[in-house]
Amino acid sequence: MKTLNYEKRQTAIVENMNKAEIDLFLITPSIDFGYLFKGFVSLSERLKCGMLSTHDDARMIAPFFEKENMQNHTSFDDVITWKEDEDPYVVLKKAIPYDVKKIALEPTMPFEIYIKLQKQFPDVDFVDGSKIIRKQRATKSEAEIERLEKAGRYTVDGMLSALDLIKPGMTELEVLKLFQEEMTLQSGEPSWALVQFDENSAVPHGSPSTRRMRENSVVLIDAGSMCDHYFADITLTTFYGKVTDEFLKVYEIVESANEAALEASKIGIPCEEVDFAARKIIDEAGYGEYFTHRLGHGLGLEVHEEPYMVKGNNRLLVEGNVHTDEPGIYIPNKFGIRIEDDIFVGEKSKRTVSFDRYLWTKR
Amino acid sequence: MKTLNYEKRQTAIVENMNKAEIDLFLITPSIDFGYLFKGFVSLSERLKCGMLSTHDDARMIAPFFEKENMQNHTSFDDVITWKEDEDPYVVLKKAIPYDVKKIALEPTMPFEIYIKLQKQFPDVDFVDGSKIIRKQRATKSEAEIERLEKAGRYTVDGMLSALDLIKPGMTELEVLKLFQEEMTLQSGEPSWALVQFDENSAVPHGSPSTRRMRENSVVLIDAGSMCDHYFADITLTTFYGKVTDEFLKVYEIVESANEAALEASKIGIPCEEVDFAARKIIDEAGYGEYFTHRLGHGLGLEVHEEPYMVKGNNRLLVEGNVHTDEPGIYIPNKFGIRIEDDIFVGEKSKRTVSFDRYLWTKR
Repeated sequence: MKTLNYEKRQTAIVENMNKAEIDLFLITPSIDFGYLFKGFVSLSERLKCGMLSTHDDARMIAPFFEKENMQNHTSFDDVITWKEDEDPYVVLKKAIPYDVKKIALEPTMPFEIYIKLQKQFPDVDFVDGSKIIRKQRATKSEAEIERLEKAGRYTVDGMLSALDLIKPGMTELEVLKLFQEEMTLQSGEPSWALVQFDENSAVPHGSPSTRRMRENSVVLIDAGSMCDHYFADITLTTFYGKVTDEFLKVYEIVESANEAALEASKIGIPCEEVDFAARKIIDEAGYGEYFTHRLGHGLGLEVHEEPYMVKGNNRLLVEGNVHTDEPGIYIPNKFGIRIEDDIFVGEKSKRTVSFDRYLWTKR
Repeated sequence: MKTLNYEKRQTAIVENMNKAEIDLFLITPSIDFGYLFKGFVSLSERLKCGMLSTHDDARMIAPFFEKENMQNHTSFDDVITWKEDEDPYVVLKKAIPYDVKKIALEPTMPFEIYIKLQKQFPDVDFVDGSKIIRKQRATKSEAEIERLEKAGRYTVDGMLSALDLIKPGMTELEVLKLFQEEMTLQSGEPSWALVQFDENSAVPHGSPSTRRMRENSVVLIDAGSMCDHYFADITLTTFYGKVTDEFLKVYEIVESANEAALEASKIGIPCEEVDFAARKIIDEAGYGEYFTHRLGHGLGLEVHEEPYMVKGNNRLLVEGNVHTDEPGIYIPNKFGIRIEDDIFVGEKSKRTVSFDRYLWTKR
């Protein structure tokens, strides 16, 4: 696979820090940390923090006994350490000899860490680093596109294998396990899935239960494999057994909405327009009140990230954006249908993985 | 199992809020959310937030389409909702008609959420809620003690089964999988493990690798099962094959240090004294420089939580505290030995699970 260039990512951030007159960007363990510094280090009560500076090279601070581990698993050679009985915030402060006026914080940094930083830097202006980091992460490089494409392929292939194995009597949790296993066989990395049958499928984001599949059942599976930390997010809804006319009717509306959003998505279009394109189809078919969520979200190192395809988001799509296309109709106490795939934004946007949807909708 | 009383937990928090003149405590999805409101809901870019108030009943805010799901999986009946194209922070503000001067935030709340709250409540004093929530969580109820005891038992039983299955040639990752599987067979819940052989064991918190076990190998396994979300955290270090004199010598020192800490731990003793008791043994044996981390940490819904057994922590142990006892000696490029078990604090503290350590040290 193509190499991910961490130095380039860091350099681009520092350029934007310079423009915004930010002296320091502090990044505690998070997806952003992994994106910038390679290691998907876990957050704990012991301070670990990556530091990008407009005055100095990139460094990190970590507990003394984890120094070697950090050097092995992140892009940092230069690790400042603190001992178990030292205050890591005092050590961090001492490691910054230059004058600091504005510090950006990684957007998911825990509030309690911010409070401790504020005590060390009482006169500094702390700002949310999301503007700097999120926009950059939303614009995928070729190496990232390659991983997202593979993740999509693993997901579809795993789903198709798993579909052959499900049968009436299985619980949602059992079917979930089957899908995860088949996807992981494809990818060799962890996979995730949500599974809902019948009335349960009408509750978006509901948890899988011990409910059993019937001889005739609506089966909704929202799932994704990973490729080198990059996610896919694909939903199939199918009718197992003798399909009803109502299901088919609703299915076709959702499918048209999904196609309309793909058509609408392109470079230079406001994100909300992609949502509107799908919503128009569902509204006109009379099911508008049952499409209760936004059309989609960006996809990458997180399953949900920028840009969001939602009313009110006027941001323009750019080359390198990747987003889901997932209209749904949820009829309470009956069933829900969601059709979701992932889209690379271009002059003409395209799905991350092409497949014959017939394979699972018309069985 | 004994029932966990969420109402009692919430009432105790609100009492402490009253004392500290805190009007509102905002709790986004986190371990603290699960502790207070039952549901271990995941954090996402869509605002979900539990609210404890000294003026009003407990409520939560969630996306409209997740209302039913929240009612099913948390202690909340009263869920305020926001629609996909609404600003959830505006909706939250409107839901609080009374005057608010001081708001406590869940300590791990993402910084970007705080920034958005601050925009809605510009004149409010935002404080770190850790003092209120962490002390309460560190004092375990009988129902929690029961779960921690079971988690310990599952861990030891799983470890003993797994020990019979490991053999030279296996990689750290393979042995890790074996331990996780055997522990999960006991508990029926996810388990975690770290596995290190030989020189790798000298790096605390190192990641498991494809390094293979030799005919004669130091094997360090740090692992834990769960019981209803409560963790165990137990480390065994053993010598597979023909044990060396050096290993045995160091093992006995670490074992004595572990015993000394158990003896020192009791109600009314400062946390750091428990660390000192173990460290004294290791220092006097001449290995002080190789005991590079604190003696232990609290244990409960998180593997690391308050109270911490570390120099500088003068807090007194109280009944209901539970902490690890994990001295270690790590000799670079040779091997590391850590012996860890979990302790219920009492007039005379005791291990959460009693077992014959001989079963794994003298094989």
